[in-house]
Formats: sequence, structure tokens, C-alpha cells
Amino acid sequence: MNLDAAMAAAIVQSERVKGRTYPNPPVGAVILDSDGEIAGVGATAPTGGPHAEVVALRRAGERAAGGTAVVTLEPCNHFGRTPPCVDALIDAGVAAVAFAVADPNPAAAGGAARLAAAGVRVSAGVVADAVTGGPLREWLHKQRTGKPHVTWKFAASVDGRSAAADGTSQWITSEASRADVHRRRAAADAIVAGTGTVFADDPALTARLPDGSLADHQPLRVVVGMREISPDATVLNDDSRTMVIRTRDPHEVIQALTDRTDVLVEGGPTLAGAFLRAGAIDRILAYVAPILLGGPVTAVDDVGVSSITQAHRWRFDGMQAIGPDVLLSLVPN
Amino acid sequence: MNLDAAMAAAIVQSERVKGRTYPNPPVGAVILDSDGEIAGVGATAPTGGPHAEVVALRRAGERAAGGTAVVTLEPCNHFGRTPPCVDALIDAGVAAVAFAVADPNPAAAGGAARLAAAGVRVSAGVVADAVTGGPLREWLHKQRTGKPHVTWKFAASVDGRSAAADGTSQWITSEASRADVHRRRAAADAIVAGTGTVFADDPALTARLPDGSLADHQPLRVVVGMREISPDATVLNDDSRTMVIRTRDPHEVIQALTDRTDVLVEGGPTLAGAFLRAGAIDRILAYVAPILLGGPVTAVDDVGVSSITQAHRWRFDGMQAIGPDVLLSLVPN
Repeated sequence: MNLDAAMAAAIVQSERVKGRTYPNPPVGAVILDSDGEIAGVGATAPTGGPHAEVVALRRAGERAAGGTAVVTLEPCNHFGRTPPCVDALIDAGVAAVAFAVADPNPAAAGGAARLAAAGVRVSAGVVADAVTGGPLREWLHKQRTGKPHVTWKFAASVDGRSAAADGTSQWITSEASRADVHRRRAAADAIVAGTGTVFADDPALTARLPDGSLADHQPLRVVVGMREISPDATVLNDDSRTMVIRTRDPHEVIQALTDRTDVLVEGGPTLAGAFLRAGAIDRILAYVAPILLGGPVTAVDDVGVSSITQAHRWRFDGMQAIGPDVLLSLVPN
Repeated sequence: MNLDAAMAAAIVQSERVKGRTYPNPPVGAVILDSDGEIAGVGATAPTGGPHAEVVALRRAGERAAGGTAVVTLEPCNHFGRTPPCVDALIDAGVAAVAFAVADPNPAAAGGAARLAAAGVRVSAGVVADAVTGGPLREWLHKQRTGKPHVTWKFAASVDGRSAAADGTSQWITSEASRADVHRRRAAADAIVAGTGTVFADDPALTARLPDGSLADHQPLRVVVGMREISPDATVLNDDSRTMVIRTRDPHEVIQALTDRTDVLVEGGPTLAGAFLRAGAIDRILAYVAPILLGGPVTAVDDVGVSSITQAHRWRFDGMQAIGPDVLLSLVPN
């Protein structure tokens, strides 16, 4: 197996633990034996548990000797809750280490240099874009800015509507898109919705599996706005914890979530507009369905633009088919 | 060169003559010599001129003998304005013919059978989807339904707006997208706009090259609506012919264009809504820019939907990046 394919397998590992490794990054690792066959895979265990490399090394056992460790993040070089991963890799006798992204955390960095000094061949930047734009996107943002990464997700018809004229919206997008959203919810630390959405739709804001059962990991539910919501609102049920923040200011919301990494804003149009006007969105995910609705209900209302020269200018960094729908990903330009 | 690559080259040929071959289909042909090298290429000449195969055979000369003719459409088997292409192919001594799409026209069909009877190896369906969804899409529709193929093209922000709140819209999409639209205009037989657009934007509705000069082929400009437009409107200038149709009924517009094949509807929102409500659109091309505008100006207003169950359901049949924008293609579900 070549390094790119092994890194793809490591990415799959990391995506399975996203949302459950705080404050550690969700990392994936694959150990190839000296013949280039997979000897073990692993991902960061929940807080306080071993890092991805150590999990994968344990599974590989003696086959790691003379092999290659393929990791999404530069192996750490510090004692945190666990000993440095570089020590475990050197002790296991791997001949080579390939990683996608260098560790931006000064306390943990230096792993590549330590490995090289110990005679291990080191390759950096392997399939780096898929990792920086994928499983480590939010964690890297947090390391860089000190603030949580905020994704605004919306579903709309191809003509930009989030509901029909009478307010009905179940369902605009397909089962495949909704499953994708639930997968992202399960990987997020918090989901933010406005009181308007709670009044209109009474959503649960939980992460569910395709069979309707609750996912193992539930994000914190955050309800934002000045209106008092009913104690009977579904969002207050026991399926997950819920924080109610009495503000209309997106910056106050982010401040209240400052210890989180991956925050998902799920609308509606008023809340989304407030976050966009405040420059508080780091990524937009648009699930676009191949339907036309027309009418007055758009996915976002006022983004503070009156003339074309003031348009919020973003950049597409991904498009993919999801079932019959299209998912567009945008980042600030 | 393999057949798929040769067909791709034939498709490129056909696209260069789209819009200028009426009533003949825009066909492309490539002649491979007996070593599989390109010996000649060709496309349908303007009305009354030779078909693509004959143009390509002339260019190939004696190298056609023992070679392969690769054609986007089944070679014709009838005397129209020109002799049957199958005769020319047999006379040239080609050993094989590969084509993408069978001729649906009973008068012209039977070419494959004639070739096979003459000892020529025949392959049908080569890269057929790229041809039926590409250069022959509109002509095949016309053959099947007797009516012109109607494409609604719109440009919008990712939140579905076709202009900012103050009506400014230059430019929502990129230079690359606008060049793509002009290329499609040059390949179309007619461009339809409403009087509302003429009053609001005073568009020329011409096909222009990237340097601003007029393209060789100009589609008929069609202005639809009950209002009287000014004799000074740019759409009435000498750059192309213009038809003014006093109706709000899309079916009357299509009736007036019944001898055309490829009709492009360019909005605005009222006209697009009328065509959509009438079920008179065969394809939607959405140029989506990575910008957000918000506000009241959407690409389409009323499509006759009041509840989600009445949504117009389409199917994405293509998505591609065009410069910084995304082009989504939809066909009826």
C-alpha cells in the first residue's frame, strides 16, 4: 500500500473519533509493516487515553519494527496526559514516519526533528490538504485563532429557498443529505440554533443514526435569542445537554463556547444573517437540493449588503454529490 | 489513439459548429488511419454543406483506407441536400466506424446496418452519454418531441440572489462564467428575455467573445411581454435580429420558435417563473457564485408552489467548477 492510500485510511480512522477527543485533536494512524501491508490502525482515544500512534502500534505489535507509521498529525514530542508518541515510535523500531500536518502547538511540536535525529526517515505534508480541510480543520483553526471553528450549515432548493411559501420544509434535501448532517452533528461539539427556529420547528438538535436512534456522541445544544422558550421544547429534553444564551450577539455566543472546537450553526435565516454580518462564520456548508420552490422563505435574509460591491465574497473549497443533492463548501476568500 | 479519446476530439469538433448547422445536427467526426493516428477531423458544415464525416474524410485523403471513422452521430443513409455519408465512408475504404448515438430520424437511419452489410466493423454507443447530454442534447430533444429544447440559465449568489437589494448585479458571477454564457449564446438559436429585463437592464442579448467583439454567430433575440419597449432599446440594435412577442404565455413563445432547436431563456425572475410554471423548461443551468447577498431580489419569484409537496423536482445531471463559480445543470426528474 502506498503512502497516499495509507493516509486515506488514517483519515477514515480520525473521522470516526471526531468530536470525542477534546482537548486532543482527532488523529488517525496506520502502521505499515516492512512489506507495506497494514499491520495496525488507530485513532485518538477519548481524553486521557492513548494517542492514535500508540493505539495503532499496539495493534501492529512486532510487525511495526522496520515498518512505516502514517499519521495525520506530526507525532507529539511532549508529556501531556500520555508520554510522547515519538518515544513509542522509536521504541517500536519503525523505519519511517509519514505525516500530513505539522503540529502547530509549540509544546507538542518537534516530533519530526526528534524522529529524524533517531534515524527514522520522516516525510511531512503527505496528503496534507485532505487533512487540513478535513478531520483537523476545526482543531487547526482553534490552535491558530484560539477560538472555536464555526460552520454554518443550511439546506436549500436550487433557487435558494429553505421552505415553501407555507413554511413547510420537510424535506427539502434527501435522506442521504440528512444522514450527512447527523454525522457532522455527531462530530461537532455544539449546535447553535435561534429561538425563532425552536418556536417554528421545535427541533431536537440531536445527532441520530440512520435507524433513528441517538448517536453515541451528542453535541451541546445551544439556543440563542432574547425570547423565552417553552420548558416543553424538545431541545430541552434529556437526549443531550442544552445551553440557553440570552443574546443576539454572535460574539457573545462564541465567547460562551470558547472552550469548544467545532461549532455548527443551523440557522434559521435571522441567526445565520447575524453570524454572517458579524464575520463569525468560518465555513459554509450548503446542501442544495435539485428542486424549485420560489416564494418568500430564503435560507438567509439580511446579511448587511445593500449593493453588489458590498457582497460577502467567499471561495468554494469543495463540491460533491450527496445522493441526489449537491454539497457546496465555502471558506472566507 | 483509442476510440474514447477520438470521440472526445469529435465532440470538440461538433461543439465548434453548434448553432450554425440548422436544420442539420451539429456532428463531429475524426478519421483515424490504420495506425490509429488522427488523419482528419471535421464537423457539419452550414446548411447545405457537407456532413462531418465527409469533411473529415476529405482531410484524411488516402489515409482513411483501412482506418476508423469516429462520429458523434450514426452516419446518415439518405439523400438529403448531400449524398449519404455511408457511401462516402464505404468508398473511402474505412475498415471500422464507431459512433456515439443512433440516428432517431427514420429517414436518415439505417446507416449502421448498411455499413455492416458492406463489411465495415461498426461500434455503437461509444461515449454516448457525453454526446446525448452534450452537443446533440438539443437536436435529439427536437427529434423526439418536435419542439425546441429550452434551457433556463440564471446566475445567482450561493444564497439564491440575482442582485443586491438595490438592484445592482454587475457582476455576481466571474468573467469565466460570463464567457461560458456567451459561448452558449453563440451556440443557441434564440435568446429569450422578458420586457421587465429589457426595461431594467437594457441588455444587448448578443454573443460576445472575451475581447468584447461580436461572435460570428448571433442567436435571434426574443423579447416577451405585454409592455411596449422603447425603439432605442439596445436589444433592437443591428448586432442581431430581434423578435418581439406580445404575450405572457410561454407556450405561445415556444410555438413562435417551433422551427428552432436550441432556445436559451435568460430571465428575469417573472419570465423564468412563468416558464417553470408552464413546464416549458427542459434544462436549468445555474451559475452559482461563492458570494452572499441576502435581500429581496431572488433569481426566480413564483413557481406556483405553496407547499413542499408541490416542489418542482429535478435531477442534477452535472456540476463543474467554472473559474471561482460552480455551474449546476438540472434536467426534469
